[in-house]
Amino acid sequence: MDPKNKAKLMINKLSSKDQNFTAQLKALTSWDQSSNEEINSTVKTIIGDVIKNGDQSVLDYTQKFDSVYAGSISELVISKERLKESFDNLDEEQKTALSLAADRIRSYHQKQIQESWSYTEEDGTVLGQKIIPLERAGLYVPGGKAAYPSSVLMNAIPAKVAGVKELVMVVPTPKGIINELVLAAAYVAEVDLVFTIGGAQAIAALAYGTETVPKVDKIVGPGNIYVASAKRHVFGQVGIDMIAGPSEILIICDGSTNPDWIAMDLFSQAEHDEDAQAILLCPDKDFISQVEESIKKLLPSMDRAEIIRSSLKNRGALILTKDIAEAIQISNSIAPEHLELSVEDPEGIVDQIKHAGAIFMGQYSSEALGDYCAGTNHVLPTSSTARFSSPLGVYDFTKRSSIIMVSKDGANKLGKTASTLAYGEGLQAHALSALYRTDKE
Amino acid sequence: MDPKNKAKLMINKLSSKDQNFTAQLKALTSWDQSSNEEINSTVKTIIGDVIKNGDQSVLDYTQKFDSVYAGSISELVISKERLKESFDNLDEEQKTALSLAADRIRSYHQKQIQESWSYTEEDGTVLGQKIIPLERAGLYVPGGKAAYPSSVLMNAIPAKVAGVKELVMVVPTPKGIINELVLAAAYVAEVDLVFTIGGAQAIAALAYGTETVPKVDKIVGPGNIYVASAKRHVFGQVGIDMIAGPSEILIICDGSTNPDWIAMDLFSQAEHDEDAQAILLCPDKDFISQVEESIKKLLPSMDRAEIIRSSLKNRGALILTKDIAEAIQISNSIAPEHLELSVEDPEGIVDQIKHAGAIFMGQYSSEALGDYCAGTNHVLPTSSTARFSSPLGVYDFTKRSSIIMVSKDGANKLGKTASTLAYGEGLQAHALSALYRTDKE
Repeated sequence: MDPKNKAKLMINKLSSKDQNFTAQLKALTSWDQSSNEEINSTVKTIIGDVIKNGDQSVLDYTQKFDSVYAGSISELVISKERLKESFDNLDEEQKTALSLAADRIRSYHQKQIQESWSYTEEDGTVLGQKIIPLERAGLYVPGGKAAYPSSVLMNAIPAKVAGVKELVMVVPTPKGIINELVLAAAYVAEVDLVFTIGGAQAIAALAYGTETVPKVDKIVGPGNIYVASAKRHVFGQVGIDMIAGPSEILIICDGSTNPDWIAMDLFSQAEHDEDAQAILLCPDKDFISQVEESIKKLLPSMDRAEIIRSSLKNRGALILTKDIAEAIQISNSIAPEHLELSVEDPEGIVDQIKHAGAIFMGQYSSEALGDYCAGTNHVLPTSSTARFSSPLGVYDFTKRSSIIMVSKDGANKLGKTASTLAYGEGLQAHALSALYRTDKE
Repeated sequence: MDPKNKAKLMINKLSSKDQNFTAQLKALTSWDQSSNEEINSTVKTIIGDVIKNGDQSVLDYTQKFDSVYAGSISELVISKERLKESFDNLDEEQKTALSLAADRIRSYHQKQIQESWSYTEEDGTVLGQKIIPLERAGLYVPGGKAAYPSSVLMNAIPAKVAGVKELVMVVPTPKGIINELVLAAAYVAEVDLVFTIGGAQAIAALAYGTETVPKVDKIVGPGNIYVASAKRHVFGQVGIDMIAGPSEILIICDGSTNPDWIAMDLFSQAEHDEDAQAILLCPDKDFISQVEESIKKLLPSMDRAEIIRSSLKNRGALILTKDIAEAIQISNSIAPEHLELSVEDPEGIVDQIKHAGAIFMGQYSSEALGDYCAGTNHVLPTSSTARFSSPLGVYDFTKRSSIIMVSKDGANKLGKTASTLAYGEGLQAHALSALYRTDKE
C-alpha cells in the first residue's frame, strides 16, 4: 500500500472478492497469545514468595507496586459499611442505573441455575449427578483507570446466584486511589470480602491462601498481563475463567440500519483499547461508504478519538461481501466475541450462526446494552475461543459429582460386564472388586 | 519411623487423634503438579515444528518416537472397516460387555443434554442462551500397555451424544503394535476418524491442523507427561479437559462391609500405578484390623502385586476416625476423585459430601462398576480439583452463545441505564451507541 494512503487510512476496506481476501482476513484477526518469558519469570517469583511468606510477602509487593503502606493485611480490608457508603454517596441516577443493571443480570442468571438429577433403574440402581456451588470464589478487579463497576456486577452476580458461600474480591488501589463506583458495585453485587491488593501477589494469595486471605476454589475477572500470567500459573491449583484477549465486535448489516448507529457500535468496541477489533460485514457497497462517512464525521467528536483511530486503522475493517450468507460464513470462520445481526430479519438467520460469544439480534440491540444491563453476561470468549467456550455463567460457579448407588441385583448384573472389560484391560483387582458383589463369587 | 518397621510396612495406619494428623494427611495426599522444564522445552519444539511443517513433521516424529515408517499421514488412517473388523473379531463375551457398557454410558449421558432457552419480556425483548455442540473434537488415546478401551468409550460417547460432528481419535502404535480392543471400542463409540499418531506431535496436529489432520476445537483424553504438557501448551488455541493427576479412591466405611471387599476396592485403585492413592476412613478399629488382614491375605495372589504394594506403602492409608461425621469432614478436606460411602445408610449422609468427583453409595457400589459400565463417566477430577471441577460430560462438548434481541421499547428504557453506567466508566461511544436507540437522541 502507498504509504501516503496508509497515513490517511481511517479503517481497512476489504472485499471478499479480493484475490488474497482469506490471507488478509487471517492477518487482521490473528492475535498472538504467546507469553512473555520475562513476565512469566517475575510472576513465578512472586507466586513462590507468597506461598512461602504469606501475608508479609503480599504486603511487601503491595508496597513495592502500589505504594500502599500497611502494617497488616487486615488494614487492607474494606468493610461492608464502607462499600455501602460508596453506594449511598452516588447520585440518584447512578444508584438507580446500578441497581437496575444488577436486578436484570440477576434475573437472567437465575435462569441458568441447574438442578441435581437422578433416575432409578428397574433393579433399584440409582444414577445421577449432584450440582454443588463452589465454596469460595475470588474476583479480580483491576485498579486505576480500567476499573469497571459493570465488570464487578458481571463476575460477582453469577457467583452469588450459583450459591457461592464466600465471594472474595481483590482490587488494587495504586497510591491509595479508590474507585468509588467499583466499591458501590461490590455492595450491590453482595461481595462478601474485599481486599485492596492486586497483581500477581493477589492472585497467588487467593490461590494458595495466606494467614489473612482465604484460599478460594476459583478465580475470575480481568487483569493486566501480570494478572493473566499469574492466573495461567495457578490454573490446576484453582479453577480460572478464560484468559481474555482484546475485545472484538463483528457486525453483519444488510444496509437497513442507520449508518451512524453502525459507526458508533464500531467505536464502542474500538474505544476499549488500541488492540480492540471492530469489523463490519455488509453486501451493500453504498452502505459501506455511508458508514465510512459516518466514521469520518463522528470520530473527531469522540473523547477517546485517538484510541478509536488506532484501533480502527490497525485492526478494524469494513468488508464487502457477496451476500448475507457469505457474511455469516465469514463470521463463523472468525467466531467473534460480540456479533451484531443488524438486519431486518435476524430470526431468519440466527440458526446459521455457529460460533459467537453473544449474538445481538436486530437494529435496536446494540452491544453496549449487553455490556451493562440487558442481563446477559459481558464476560465472553475472545480470539476465536467462542468455538469451544461460553459466556461466564452460573455454571462456572458450580461443579458436579456423579452419583452411583447400585442395588444388589444391579451389582450382580453389572459386575459380570465390568469384570470382562477389566480383565480385557489387565486389571484384575478391578475385576475381582466387581465380581465379589456378584453371585459368581 | 523405625526403618525395620518401614520395610515391613504394608500400608500407612493413621488416627485422627494423632497429634500431627493434619500434617501427616497433607503430606500423604499432596501431589506436586509442577512441570518439568526439559519436557516443556522438548514439547515446545515439537509443537513449533508441527505448526511449521505440518504432515512431514508429524511423520518424522512418528518415525523417531514410535518407529513407524509411513510415506504420508493418509497411510496412518485406520478405516472404519478396520475398526469394525476389530470389533467383529472379539469373542462374544467381550462384544456383549463392550456394547452393554456403551449403551449404559450413552443412556446416562443423554440425561445431560441441555436445551437452548429464552424468555420474552413485557416490552418484547428476548433474552436467552443457545447451546451448540462443538464442531470437531479430538480424542487422545495412549498406545501400548496403558491403552484402555473403556477410556475410549468414556471420552467419545459424551462427544457424540452432544452432537459433535466429527470426532477425531489419535492413538500411537509404537513399533506398529495395534490394540484391537481400543479399535473395537472406537467402533462401538462411533469415532469418525482415527490416526495412528501420538505424543506431543499428535496434540499439535489436532490443535493447529496439518494438510491431513483436521484442526479440532477441543482435545480430551489421557496421556503421558509429554501429552499432558502439550495439552497445557495448546490450551487457549483449543479447549482441553483437565490435566489428570494420579487416580485416587477414598472409602468411608462404617465397618458393616465385608473387609475383603474393601481391601479389593483399595487394590483396584492401587493397581493403576505406584502413584495411585487408596485411603480408608473408618471409626471402627477392629474393622481396620480386619481390612489389614484382608490386604495381607489377598495381596500375594494379585497379578499386579508389586504395583499395589508400592502404591499402598507410599500413598495408601487406613485412617481411624472418631466417627462417620469426622470421616466425612476429612473426606471433604481431601476432595477425592472417587468416594465410596460403604455404609448401611449412604442416603443419610450423602448431602454432607461437598467435594468428590464421583460418589459410590452403599456396599454394592464398587468403584470398578463406575469405571466400566454403571453409565457415569470415569474421567473425573483428581488432586482435589473436585473442589471446582466436574466429571467429563456432554456439557464439555457444547458451548453457549448469549442471545439478546432488544425491542424498540426495550432499547429506549435500557439505553438510558446503559448510558449512565457507560459515562460512569468514561466510555462515551458505549453511551452514545445506546442513546442513539432511545428517544433522547
